[in-house]
Amino acid sequence: MENKLTHFDKEGKAIMVDVSEKEDTSREATAKGKVIMKKETLNLIKNGEMGKGDVLGVARVAGIMAAKQTHNIIPMCHPLMITKSQVDFSIIEEENAIEVIGIVKTTGKTGVEMEALTAVSAAALTIYDMCKAVDKKMTICDVHLYKKTGGKSGNFIHEK
Amino acid sequence: MENKLTHFDKEGKAIMVDVSEKEDTSREATAKGKVIMKKETLNLIKNGEMGKGDVLGVARVAGIMAAKQTHNIIPMCHPLMITKSQVDFSIIEEENAIEVIGIVKTTGKTGVEMEALTAVSAAALTIYDMCKAVDKKMTICDVHLYKKTGGKSGNFIHEK
Amino acid sequence: MENKLTHFDKEGKAIMVDVSEKEDTSREATAKGKVIMKKETLNLIKNGEMGKGDVLGVARVAGIMAAKQTHNIIPMCHPLMITKSQVDFSIIEEENAIEVIGIVKTTGKTGVEMEALTAVSAAALTIYDMCKAVDKKMTICDVHLYKKTGGKSGNFIHEK
Amino acid sequence: MENKLTHFDKEGKAIMVDVSEKEDTSREATAKGKVIMKKETLNLIKNGEMGKGDVLGVARVAGIMAAKQTHNIIPMCHPLMITKSQVDFSIIEEENAIEVIGIVKTTGKTGVEMEALTAVSAAALTIYDMCKAVDKKMTICDVHLYKKTGGKSGNFIHEK
Amino acid sequence: MENKLTHFDKEGKAIMVDVSEKEDTSREATAKGKVIMKKETLNLIKNGEMGKGDVLGVARVAGIMAAKQTHNIIPMCHPLMITKSQVDFSIIEEENAIEVIGIVKTTGKTGVEMEALTAVSAAALTIYDMCKAVDKKMTICDVHLYKKTGGKSGNFIHEK
Amino acid sequence: MENKLTHFDKEGKAIMVDVSEKEDTSREATAKGKVIMKKETLNLIKNGEMGKGDVLGVARVAGIMAAKQTHNIIPMCHPLMITKSQVDFSIIEEENAIEVIGIVKTTGKTGVEMEALTAVSAAALTIYDMCKAVDKKMTICDVHLYKKTGGKSGNFIHEK
Repeated sequence: MENKLTHFDKEGKAIMVDVSEKEDTSREATAKGKVIMKKETLNLIKNGEMGKGDVLGVARVAGIMAAKQTHNIIPMCHPLMITKSQVDFSIIEEENAIEVIGIVKTTGKTGVEMEALTAVSAAALTIYDMCKAVDKKMTICDVHLYKKTGGKSGNFIHEK
Repeated sequence: MENKLTHFDKEGKAIMVDVSEKEDTSREATAKGKVIMKKETLNLIKNGEMGKGDVLGVARVAGIMAAKQTHNIIPMCHPLMITKSQVDFSIIEEENAIEVIGIVKTTGKTGVEMEALTAVSAAALTIYDMCKAVDKKMTICDVHLYKKTGGKSGNFIHEK
Repeated sequence: MENKLTHFDKEGKAIMVDVSEKEDTSREATAKGKVIMKKETLNLIKNGEMGKGDVLGVARVAGIMAAKQTHNIIPMCHPLMITKSQVDFSIIEEENAIEVIGIVKTTGKTGVEMEALTAVSAAALTIYDMCKAVDKKMTICDVHLYKKTGGKSGNFIHEK
Repeated sequence: MENKLTHFDKEGKAIMVDVSEKEDTSREATAKGKVIMKKETLNLIKNGEMGKGDVLGVARVAGIMAAKQTHNIIPMCHPLMITKSQVDFSIIEEENAIEVIGIVKTTGKTGVEMEALTAVSAAALTIYDMCKAVDKKMTICDVHLYKKTGGKSGNFIHEK
Repeated sequence: MENKLTHFDKEGKAIMVDVSEKEDTSREATAKGKVIMKKETLNLIKNGEMGKGDVLGVARVAGIMAAKQTHNIIPMCHPLMITKSQVDFSIIEEENAIEVIGIVKTTGKTGVEMEALTAVSAAALTIYDMCKAVDKKMTICDVHLYKKTGGKSGNFIHEK
Repeated sequence: MENKLTHFDKEGKAIMVDVSEKEDTSREATAKGKVIMKKETLNLIKNGEMGKGDVLGVARVAGIMAAKQTHNIIPMCHPLMITKSQVDFSIIEEENAIEVIGIVKTTGKTGVEMEALTAVSAAALTIYDMCKAVDKKMTICDVHLYKKTGGKSGNFIHEK
């Protein structure tokens, strides 16, 4: 039955899924999310990009490093050897938002969806942390898997 | 000037803010967020609560543990001694969503907003991880600071 | 000479053994251990399995996550990519004990004995932690490698 | 009612207990455990103490460091500021065993029982790791809280 | 006798020093170090400061975060609650070097010398990592404690 | 152009370099560094080697363990599966110095230069920590990559 939650055994106990028999293949995942804020906050961040008060520079490092910690944050995630981790930002003026994009690659037995999502979440949280003194109402939303290639379940794309 | 980003020094370089002179006070923060999914996925999770395939039980542990890792995930966060960490879930049938609520307390020199937000994010990501085999389009949204008490900046509430 | 401790070089200095020349093979290890307690404590845990106060659910997550941290806890352990981590419990009524069973798999150059033993130890410690308010005299015992397959040293089984 | 498991809320959900209202007091805990092995293995370890192949020196470091990681291994443990961590060993010739003793102190709102027990477990596992090439049947047993002072629940001693 | 190594007990066994009886006082430490490189490498880094290829921005984050990990890297270091962590860089043209300065503060029972030194080392290593494709011969030198205030052993300054 | 800093993309943003297309090859790196101290301090350490107060034994464990943490300390480092980690010391009487040598091996897509350098730095910092009560002016210097084999950029040696 296709609806089975794979992270549980037959008795309903949580397990880290056995991927021993899976082949090492090239896998990539892209996740996206948004941080919505006041226009003044967005302006402060945009000014910082010019070299002083570089919020996005710090958030990028946070996201890249968090991808490597995914298996210590998400209990049932397998450890894996990330071969690329990238975090980009794009300003969405009309929504007073910053889009966060995380791209992770590996060659291994499991995908890197959670690593990409974790990178996006950590970068977004870091933006919140660095701006919370001026804008406590910032909201993180639309964190989702945008694209995934490689692996047995095949390619996937989720346009919102 | 009130709009200053506190995580940078006068030259615009990132710093962990000096809180040495702040007093130890009792502080609490509550953060909230939602995981939106297919009705079928929500039903699978609800069935699991009865003891088999307990997605929320695992996500709760993930959130509680992640709160303790906040200062290793968010670069400018101070380490602090959490005195309470709690993660609750509430089913929102009409939105096919699970609301995640994180409550963190400490007695210290800085607040626990980021700890509460990190707990919510990690719990939400764990829900995604455990259900992604059946629903890759789940989305994490509305992650925000709901309430905060204690500390010099005073109390704060953000009803959405 | 067969009795040589492999974790030291010729001068007796501790080293992480060089496994570079070893082949990647499929390896599996099962470790077991017991937590002995008062009958009342065991009853409390058994009642919790029904969905409220699920000690073993939390201990299972702790064990699975600890397996991934083995190389950071045991100094000379190699990091490796666990492909499966599973923790089971079985109630031994006549001994007022809970048996903890940890099963770990990998495809790699070294075995996963320490990962399985670490999973069992962490799960047992978590049981202790969650019940210590009612039973400080609980004891963890019989933690041992039960079975191991794969690798140059061949298969091994240790029935007690 | 005295039998309540404190790590769960009224609805039976796991929580990190709220210790905010507790006072900072001086606390100390001593845990003990044993590693039972072949006589030949014990002799190898004893010879190593003389400076070459110092199994116990490495295990001591592992135990001291693991105490600091307790709150990342045991899900509901509070982070706390250890003020002392010590690991000792004593050879029990007649049992072909090494006794491991862990002593941890803090000044804080919660006790250090789990830190002492984790130190003992990590040191014992490290002994296993370093000797497993010659003795896979080693067994870790009798891991228990030996003594605890400070805190509201008062002093405790457990002679075996 | 003044020459005693404090990190060992009377029998010469490594211990984390007992600081339970020490008072919580305000403490600060500054460490310094240098990364020496080719003129071309230094020029590349200086150009990056203008906003693209910001080596020092990444190294700063690495240093600040590493200070928080000190007690997990240095075995006998006590965990403590850093209240400030700052990493600065200064270009020394005539030596083709970048000076790294780490400043850490806490209110606690032990000093933050190791935290400041660890911050400097991690920032220096990150500079090496990010430039090693063009200059493998970079050298990290003169890593030393520059200044320390607070604590029983009093103030200290080390001008080189 | 040979002078490009590889850890940045075309727009100058920090990235973890994509090594997905690289082949798994056998790689080894040796790093060296020195800790310079007072003659009295060196003598204390030398005496400790005889079994009591073994500073270098603890520093060796610290270096070996830190190599495994490299990707969590250096932001753009890839996680990789170390197959060997070794830390040696050599006394340089005429300089009142201890030379620290770190050797790390892997079979993978990226080199282990940073792992070897991190092992040396952590071991040197641990020597500082354990002797700082008697000699606060110790200095860590000459930390450099001594040798590297394997990988596309070929072999490298740096005699000083």
